[in-house]
Amino acid sequence: MKFMASLPLPIKKKVRALRKLQLITTHLDAEFHRKVYELERSFEERHRDIFKKRFEIINGDYEPTEEECNYSDAEYTLDYTHAIDDFPLSVDNSCPPFDANARGVPDFWLTIFKYVPLFETFVKETDEPALKHLVDIRCVTKPPPDLSFTLEFHFSPNPFFSNSVLTKEYLLKCDPDNDDPFSFDGPEIYKCIGCNIDWYEGKDLTCKTVKRKSQLNQDRGSVKIIKTESFFNFFDPPEIPEDEHDPQFDDINTILETDFEIGHYLKERIVPRAVLYFTGESDDFSDSTSNDDESEDCDVSEEDIGEEGGNVPDGDGDAAP
Amino acid sequence: MKFMASLPLPIKKKVRALRKLQLITTHLDAEFHRKVYELERSFEERHRDIFKKRFEIINGDYEPTEEECNYSDAEYTLDYTHAIDDFPLSVDNSCPPFDANARGVPDFWLTIFKYVPLFETFVKETDEPALKHLVDIRCVTKPPPDLSFTLEFHFSPNPFFSNSVLTKEYLLKCDPDNDDPFSFDGPEIYKCIGCNIDWYEGKDLTCKTVKRKSQLNQDRGSVKIIKTESFFNFFDPPEIPEDEHDPQFDDINTILETDFEIGHYLKERIVPRAVLYFTGESDDFSDSTSNDDESEDCDVSEEDIGEEGGNVPDGDGDAAP
Repeated sequence: MKFMASLPLPIKKKVRALRKLQLITTHLDAEFHRKVYELERSFEERHRDIFKKRFEIINGDYEPTEEECNYSDAEYTLDYTHAIDDFPLSVDNSCPPFDANARGVPDFWLTIFKYVPLFETFVKETDEPALKHLVDIRCVTKPPPDLSFTLEFHFSPNPFFSNSVLTKEYLLKCDPDNDDPFSFDGPEIYKCIGCNIDWYEGKDLTCKTVKRKSQLNQDRGSVKIIKTESFFNFFDPPEIPEDEHDPQFDDINTILETDFEIGHYLKERIVPRAVLYFTGESDDFSDSTSNDDESEDCDVSEEDIGEEGGNVPDGDGDAAP
Repeated sequence: MKFMASLPLPIKKKVRALRKLQLITTHLDAEFHRKVYELERSFEERHRDIFKKRFEIINGDYEPTEEECNYSDAEYTLDYTHAIDDFPLSVDNSCPPFDANARGVPDFWLTIFKYVPLFETFVKETDEPALKHLVDIRCVTKPPPDLSFTLEFHFSPNPFFSNSVLTKEYLLKCDPDNDDPFSFDGPEIYKCIGCNIDWYEGKDLTCKTVKRKSQLNQDRGSVKIIKTESFFNFFDPPEIPEDEHDPQFDDINTILETDFEIGHYLKERIVPRAVLYFTGESDDFSDSTSNDDESEDCDVSEEDIGEEGGNVPDGDGDAAP
């Protein structure tokens, strides 16, 4: 006999009263997370100036002074000894040589996209010429009551599409579900919205034209447009079918799960600490690559055993379509 | 040749300027986490009334009304069908039958301690008679500038020790480390402080007396006190040796790593949602047990790919001694 079933009715009833109290805690928790969201928004404004300067340096609009380049922590010398050792992926031939006289830091965002493990299957070689024009990624959160964040991908003029900004909005819910209130664990992404890309003719990286030869007449074949794998499909996410018995339901759920993960990751990690992904210093690299030399030096690995509970919130927008 | 080393000097210098900017972001981040800590404290006060009522029901000081027991969500009926199915561990014989006329909910905290996987090796059978007297666990955070939280274990009068409260304080740091600022990822436990337990004579559960027989004289043996495994060692954590070449350094680090995890887990999960651990409904159970029937019903499992970055903090006090 299982535990809860084994309890006598008077005790079951008291447990039921405790669960009802727990419900109050859960709603208080949702309120807490909304306050954290507002706090985030107030810090977003303070981050904006720093990120603007970052953008200007990366794009060569601003040349940092000697003083500004003088980063003098003991570990990170001008030679980047540390960063070099830690860089997880060998870049050698796959990486074009950087021109010493280039404006700013060329291919800054493309480099990040190429070397972050989560993006490996996400960015295709055919996307790279277009992603060379990616000059900034910004994250803007919406004022309450509706909770959402929008990732803005800023592009320089390029031969692929006419948009200067591509956007992807992630909608968050921060309310305990009536049917299952105790599963509430902070804000959760439940939907995303892409944008139209105004491709120049013949430049659409998300599809290609295939000629099917007619068996009757070798010259007259039908033309078919098929979807191709591309980073730019990120801006055209599938809709979750309303009917969960839809044959595509599981596939779409899997696609969106990855999509939400990527959106969350861009917001929480990549945008705020982009340079650390560029230099290969991010902790995320050491998590996902085995580097025996390193293991002794670094902190005892920490297992995240639960990051919520009325006090400290979990990530803002976990991937759970 | 590795990536950072391959960059021409002018670009390296710009990257250096970007890293210097990143340092500002990191410190802004620390400020954000301190604000979240203050927000937590303000919610702690609001939680206090709910937890007080919980305590009174558990200990039979307050008998909930019919209305208060009337928890009417669709899924959780009076039979606890859901909770019964989900309860991960078979309890049967190991669990004493509950008396229908018992005051409150007997063995509430002991039951949680016995069935939470993280505590399995932590709570010994010999501890159980003492833990039957554990009547509440509370968490109190300190007002800034010093960041810490104290877990208070409240006991009813018992034959083991005279203390009515045992405490364990966890000290947090929320400042980027000068030597490695970019590893900063929110508040981190760096130290814990236990308390003295005033054991009644012969009742100390953390040690036992062993007689060693003398080979020369069978009657005269020396008496030796040896430490035993017990939950109550939790209140006497080891100190981290200052010298990292100390032969015990690694062992102590491992002990503290688990200790910090447990402290963090008690604060973030157990204390705020104790009843869900009692009923076996906590998500933590389904994470750690494989339940095939359940997997179809529940949300797509979410991988936590990084829960910080200037915006949403990670758990308050990750275990990293």
